[in-house]
Amino acid sequence: MEIKLHPDRFFSPDPGQLSVARELYRQVEHLPLVCPHGHVDPRIFADPDYRFGSPTELLLIPDHYIFRMLYSAGVRLEDLGVPYANGSSDYDPRKAWQIFADHFHLFSGTPTGIWLQDEMVNVFGVRSKLGSKNAQEIYDQIDAQLRLPAFAPRALFEQFNIEVLCTTETVSDSLEYHSAIRSSGWGARILPTYRTDAVVSLDTPGWINDLHALEEQSGISISDFSSFISTLEGRREFFKSMGAVAADHAALTAKTLSLPASDMDAIFQRGLIGEVSRTDAAVFTAGMLVEMARMSAEDGLVMQLHVGSYRNHNPALSSRFGSDKGADIPVQTELTQNLKPLLDQFGNHPNFHLILFTLDESTYSREFAPLAGHYPALKLGPPWWFHDSIHGIERYLNQVVETAGIYNTVGFNDDTRAFPSIPARHDVWRRVTCNWIAGLLVRRIIDQEDAERMAKAMAYDLAKQAYFLD
Amino acid sequence: MEIKLHPDRFFSPDPGQLSVARELYRQVEHLPLVCPHGHVDPRIFADPDYRFGSPTELLLIPDHYIFRMLYSAGVRLEDLGVPYANGSSDYDPRKAWQIFADHFHLFSGTPTGIWLQDEMVNVFGVRSKLGSKNAQEIYDQIDAQLRLPAFAPRALFEQFNIEVLCTTETVSDSLEYHSAIRSSGWGARILPTYRTDAVVSLDTPGWINDLHALEEQSGISISDFSSFISTLEGRREFFKSMGAVAADHAALTAKTLSLPASDMDAIFQRGLIGEVSRTDAAVFTAGMLVEMARMSAEDGLVMQLHVGSYRNHNPALSSRFGSDKGADIPVQTELTQNLKPLLDQFGNHPNFHLILFTLDESTYSREFAPLAGHYPALKLGPPWWFHDSIHGIERYLNQVVETAGIYNTVGFNDDTRAFPSIPARHDVWRRVTCNWIAGLLVRRIIDQEDAERMAKAMAYDLAKQAYFLD
Amino acid sequence: MEIKLHPDRFFSPDPGQLSVARELYRQVEHLPLVCPHGHVDPRIFADPDYRFGSPTELLLIPDHYIFRMLYSAGVRLEDLGVPYANGSSDYDPRKAWQIFADHFHLFSGTPTGIWLQDEMVNVFGVRSKLGSKNAQEIYDQIDAQLRLPAFAPRALFEQFNIEVLCTTETVSDSLEYHSAIRSSGWGARILPTYRTDAVVSLDTPGWINDLHALEEQSGISISDFSSFISTLEGRREFFKSMGAVAADHAALTAKTLSLPASDMDAIFQRGLIGEVSRTDAAVFTAGMLVEMARMSAEDGLVMQLHVGSYRNHNPALSSRFGSDKGADIPVQTELTQNLKPLLDQFGNHPNFHLILFTLDESTYSREFAPLAGHYPALKLGPPWWFHDSIHGIERYLNQVVETAGIYNTVGFNDDTRAFPSIPARHDVWRRVTCNWIAGLLVRRIIDQEDAERMAKAMAYDLAKQAYFLD
Repeated sequence: MEIKLHPDRFFSPDPGQLSVARELYRQVEHLPLVCPHGHVDPRIFADPDYRFGSPTELLLIPDHYIFRMLYSAGVRLEDLGVPYANGSSDYDPRKAWQIFADHFHLFSGTPTGIWLQDEMVNVFGVRSKLGSKNAQEIYDQIDAQLRLPAFAPRALFEQFNIEVLCTTETVSDSLEYHSAIRSSGWGARILPTYRTDAVVSLDTPGWINDLHALEEQSGISISDFSSFISTLEGRREFFKSMGAVAADHAALTAKTLSLPASDMDAIFQRGLIGEVSRTDAAVFTAGMLVEMARMSAEDGLVMQLHVGSYRNHNPALSSRFGSDKGADIPVQTELTQNLKPLLDQFGNHPNFHLILFTLDESTYSREFAPLAGHYPALKLGPPWWFHDSIHGIERYLNQVVETAGIYNTVGFNDDTRAFPSIPARHDVWRRVTCNWIAGLLVRRIIDQEDAERMAKAMAYDLAKQAYFLD
Repeated sequence: MEIKLHPDRFFSPDPGQLSVARELYRQVEHLPLVCPHGHVDPRIFADPDYRFGSPTELLLIPDHYIFRMLYSAGVRLEDLGVPYANGSSDYDPRKAWQIFADHFHLFSGTPTGIWLQDEMVNVFGVRSKLGSKNAQEIYDQIDAQLRLPAFAPRALFEQFNIEVLCTTETVSDSLEYHSAIRSSGWGARILPTYRTDAVVSLDTPGWINDLHALEEQSGISISDFSSFISTLEGRREFFKSMGAVAADHAALTAKTLSLPASDMDAIFQRGLIGEVSRTDAAVFTAGMLVEMARMSAEDGLVMQLHVGSYRNHNPALSSRFGSDKGADIPVQTELTQNLKPLLDQFGNHPNFHLILFTLDESTYSREFAPLAGHYPALKLGPPWWFHDSIHGIERYLNQVVETAGIYNTVGFNDDTRAFPSIPARHDVWRRVTCNWIAGLLVRRIIDQEDAERMAKAMAYDLAKQAYFLD
Repeated sequence: MEIKLHPDRFFSPDPGQLSVARELYRQVEHLPLVCPHGHVDPRIFADPDYRFGSPTELLLIPDHYIFRMLYSAGVRLEDLGVPYANGSSDYDPRKAWQIFADHFHLFSGTPTGIWLQDEMVNVFGVRSKLGSKNAQEIYDQIDAQLRLPAFAPRALFEQFNIEVLCTTETVSDSLEYHSAIRSSGWGARILPTYRTDAVVSLDTPGWINDLHALEEQSGISISDFSSFISTLEGRREFFKSMGAVAADHAALTAKTLSLPASDMDAIFQRGLIGEVSRTDAAVFTAGMLVEMARMSAEDGLVMQLHVGSYRNHNPALSSRFGSDKGADIPVQTELTQNLKPLLDQFGNHPNFHLILFTLDESTYSREFAPLAGHYPALKLGPPWWFHDSIHGIERYLNQVVETAGIYNTVGFNDDTRAFPSIPARHDVWRRVTCNWIAGLLVRRIIDQEDAERMAKAMAYDLAKQAYFLD
């Protein structure tokens, strides 16, 4: 069966709305892609001759959106090639691809299904819908292309019209690949992002190792909270010198606390001797968010805060395969009271910029939009993870914009480690936002001038402005 | 005023979507009804000559969806014929019907209103809209029909094209009516479902009586947790031998706990002497959910879990009229952390099948769909109770499918004690799902092949597969 | 650019739905405005010659919906003319207006933007869209009109076709302006509403001053809980004698408690000596809600309960500018368990009438509608504050009506202190409800008779009935 990517896909069938959506989309469709937050591995751009591996290695194995769904249907991760926690794997890439193809119907109506189809057609030129029968043929087609220079990461980066791509690195990262990209003379704008999660979660197994890595990378011995903080500050300077515009923080809850350094130090000391309680760790994380806000207000790195994901919910799975294997599940999130200590201190600060992300859509109209519709320092991240989907984007816009307006939002993040899916993801966002704006126009909630300004802002301007990417 | 059940009812007015919806519906409209969860009384099928009573007895008195709405408008339950807790009642069925008719406008825009109209037209051939003036005339018409053989329960069962109907029985039930149905030689497939709520809620008044009933039915003396468990296991075997495919569990919260048998026994012993605290009872329920999951993994009965209903919220009402009188109110529900102990043990078990139901729609996209989109053992029950409605179904599909896909859902449950409303309820589901799928198709989110497969799955296949009814 | 208020604004673009919506709207468009809850200052009607000040004073300074959005974009409140907490201000009204005009695009797609445009066109005859260039010209136009007798408050009241306007006064208010209105012989129906928040929140700074004001106004010395209660009862009688039909209560949570008078007195005594804890204060508020319900059941004043707003979330702002400055943020709300003590006592009382408002939309389908669909005493307030918007109203209707029906709702509240925005707010409600009802009709969920009855009920009848304004 042929795949048809209809030129009007995702637009309303209403003729009036459709024609407005089409025209708005025409105005933004080819704007460069601004990618201020994501997880693409910078290594693939460091060596100009880098080539992706098999279709299975490129498209299946790194994409937990795909294999979590297959796992939910009873497929074993090892059969898909997902490596064990120790890094080993033993699989047949063609068999793994066949399993994927046999289950492709599971993705009907999901964003993963949409991105995959778009990618296959627009990146790899596949013309028929993946299924059991044509699985190997499509494998061959993609595999052959991956060997061509036009499918090298740098070539695709240029073809995708990416204006800027921010990656995410842990605080102890050497940024060697970013250095290599810069020194190679290639003009692409690929920037690191500063992430401290590994070293602020005192009760994570392996925290001490992450701390040692930080010591090693910085050349500083971290013996107390004060040296910890100054080391983190030093790393921010380094990341900034390498082009970073933002820091990123993930936390189970949005809890923030303003604590005296002595209290933070006491917990940190317990961490060093491996005696932190769960409460200690939660308090420390809450205190570190306020510390990080202070640093952002001082050095101007935009603070991104991603809250509400319960990581590694399935211990049987994570003990075998490690983290980021599709077993992170959202939890209820409270923002109004939890963020208050941070906002009390920095919510009105002219040099502080906080971008907030939530996985709890019930906060959208209740806390998320009202907070951003008041505090000058706070802006709203786009629909995140599970909610980066057609209906998810529509719910976000419907529940956020009436209270916060669009100018307290920051446009789109593709937030992906699946590099070839980037254009598809931006395209869905652009189509859905244009269609949504068209809906406002045909209901006369806004006028033509508003519509055009909003469409461009959401596709391009807001992301650049919010992350100071001009 | 004439009632018109328009052939395109509940479909979108958009001409493109309408024509797709119409065609999809045509393909599923006449598929047999699969009813894997509900509360129809099996007694009505045990005797081939059973006849329903008056229209009031059939349609009003057993239906808490109807009388709760009348009660909210100030109507007294006794005037509608709802029996007192002691079983007595004193009412005039015609006057009760008149009150109902006088208030029929309260149901405008509600699913109850839709089902009632469908039932009146399609089951009883009523042609005019119920109101104060024609109330007695319509009463006469339905009353006359109820005396005819064509309106006996077995005749209606066949006319409704029910392929399988699962009822719900407490663990101590003798299943005598199911026996009678089987031994009567009538070929209808009517299966019991195993329900233990009465005996696992240690702080319910009358728990000890329910326990005695279980002892009596099983012939086993239950003196401790161990004998309690083995008795429950024995009853599962009996239910299975009578055709049961599933167990059903209701709980205020989704709290689950893995506790040593000795801890469970200690609480159980306090129960036996009437000294359980509320906390004891909640812990015991949480522990029993894990026990029940273990049994399901062992014997293959599908585990249904209905969480989040605060039963008997209005004590003045329940002291007069007893339970199930429309005073059960949903509460906020947490799934991610509460279900973890159960899922840690059985979430990856190949022989365990958990179907989860929630009354808290804010969990749909946040926890409900993400959990099912990962755990192989978990599938999602359809929109339940208040949410079994046109907009409720649409919200469910919009919030669940993008993350979990449709193959982690289980199709429809009518979940009703109102037998004549079964076809109407399935018809609403089929129309609304076909219309929703048509919406995906006209927005090119899926293609024609996907649409047809999804429509049939949601109308028929998924329910059969999830409950192993093949 | 010309502003066009399209006659079909806010209706669906679907031709079928549009034509039904248009016809329903035609039937309700010119019905008088019933305004049972709001915050217009009665002083403006007391003197027949009262004139509004500058456009900035009339439209910007009192409207926290507007200036919170400007503040979120970095505008300083003092530059808009918002007075400091001590009442002083130092600003140029034309410069303030210019800032507002320069930022008018922030309101694209927001209800504030819609109301402002409607007000400018329909009240002030402005013909071009506000922007940087024409700001001063539009200022001049509005300013000139405000001097005309036709723009005096009483003249606008009549022009707006307001049938009844309820204001909100604290319990210690003398109601002098209501007296002046009555004794002036002007026939307009402007009624006070009884509000006790200031004197029941024992931990609010200044509570003791509010209590003294109450003592002074009532002439009663309040030395204990008993005299406090009898004073409050006395004030209710006075408000009733001045035409009040309702009382209004705001609380952070919906917590209610039935406490012995001795417990309430103990807390009250701690309040008198300034030694209440936060817990004390929360318990006292919960106990007072039940007291207030008792009084309502006795004297028939409708009890309005607004829950879930965290007041003065931004202390830096409130210390400079005081309360009601756009820094109130909603919090998660629990209704089922919190309201139970109050409903246990009064939920079935035939003379008790409770209207509940929530800022937590996740409660709509989960608790809010199910509670109202059962308890005869409970009705549902319209979408409140942030949710009084096109999509907010649609979410409310979609999530509430299927469970509670429309007859457990109370029509519209404009809830505004911005007098000239009243017609615009009612017009949005009427348009959106008519369009929503039209959506039900074209999907054949209701018939024409239902649609017309529902449209009139929502625009007019329900508000009059719920507040006993006949």
